[in-house]
Amino acid sequence: MTTPESARARDDARRRHLSAEPRRALGAQDLDRRMPPYAAAVVVFDAEPPFQTPGAGAFRRTRAACLPYFPDACQTEGRDLRLTVSGDVALAHWLWRFTGMATDHLARQTLLRSPAGSQRLRGRWQIVHEHASVPFKPETGHATFTLDPQSNT
Amino acid sequence: MTTPESARARDDARRRHLSAEPRRALGAQDLDRRMPPYAAAVVVFDAEPPFQTPGAGAFRRTRAACLPYFPDACQTEGRDLRLTVSGDVALAHWLWRFTGMATDHLARQTLLRSPAGSQRLRGRWQIVHEHASVPFKPETGHATFTLDPQSNT
Repeated sequence: MTTPESARARDDARRRHLSAEPRRALGAQDLDRRMPPYAAAVVVFDAEPPFQTPGAGAFRRTRAACLPYFPDACQTEGRDLRLTVSGDVALAHWLWRFTGMATDHLARQTLLRSPAGSQRLRGRWQIVHEHASVPFKPETGHATFTLDPQSNT
Repeated sequence: MTTPESARARDDARRRHLSAEPRRALGAQDLDRRMPPYAAAVVVFDAEPPFQTPGAGAFRRTRAACLPYFPDACQTEGRDLRLTVSGDVALAHWLWRFTGMATDHLARQTLLRSPAGSQRLRGRWQIVHEHASVPFKPETGHATFTLDPQSNT
């Protein structure tokens, strides 16, 4: 049943997730704006190594190490967002891709898949888990890059 | 604040997630036991193609297509489970690997990373999103297989 409280929580979380999209820039000047929504104890499963990154501090260092490979104009755009909210927990998943870089840049060759779990801690929504991935072909161990999520390849 | 209701929801979800582990067998005889906790509208991001699988029916067909590649004795075991529950939504993430197969089987060469989001719909907890992945090296497009999640490679 949707109560006024749960409707407010849903709206808050949706607004936060959608407004977070433009903050996913990897340009150096945007890193500090990117980090605030992450809980101190977030666990990140990123598209590239390491296998898992425990904590917002470690994730910030991992992100910072990527910056030289991305132009300042780099942004992301998302699609197919689905959001589930109840009480103080929100689950979102969506597809996204990088924009604002040369079309032959490695990071432009695929959509990525992300779920993010958020929790309202002391009145503030924070990301407690985030994940980004592409599938891989088990026969070859190669990641399968696609800009067409309906594709079976 | 933990209320008796939220404590019960947490316990229910934890029990369901933990008891689901032994059901993650891919042996043909286990497929029907594996499917019931999935919501009809689940969206799955699996470790191998397709890029996304919309719906429990499509996910069942994808799973069925994998069965010839897995021995009947195949099981999984999980670790590092973290669970966040509020109201009717639960978020879990954990690491897992296949067991019960020859050590040189392709599926034995790595841990996998999974989050799952569950929702209590009409009183019954159901998985509304599940994801499994390994990271890949962007320079080569190769998935990076590891049995040591602390490794940075």
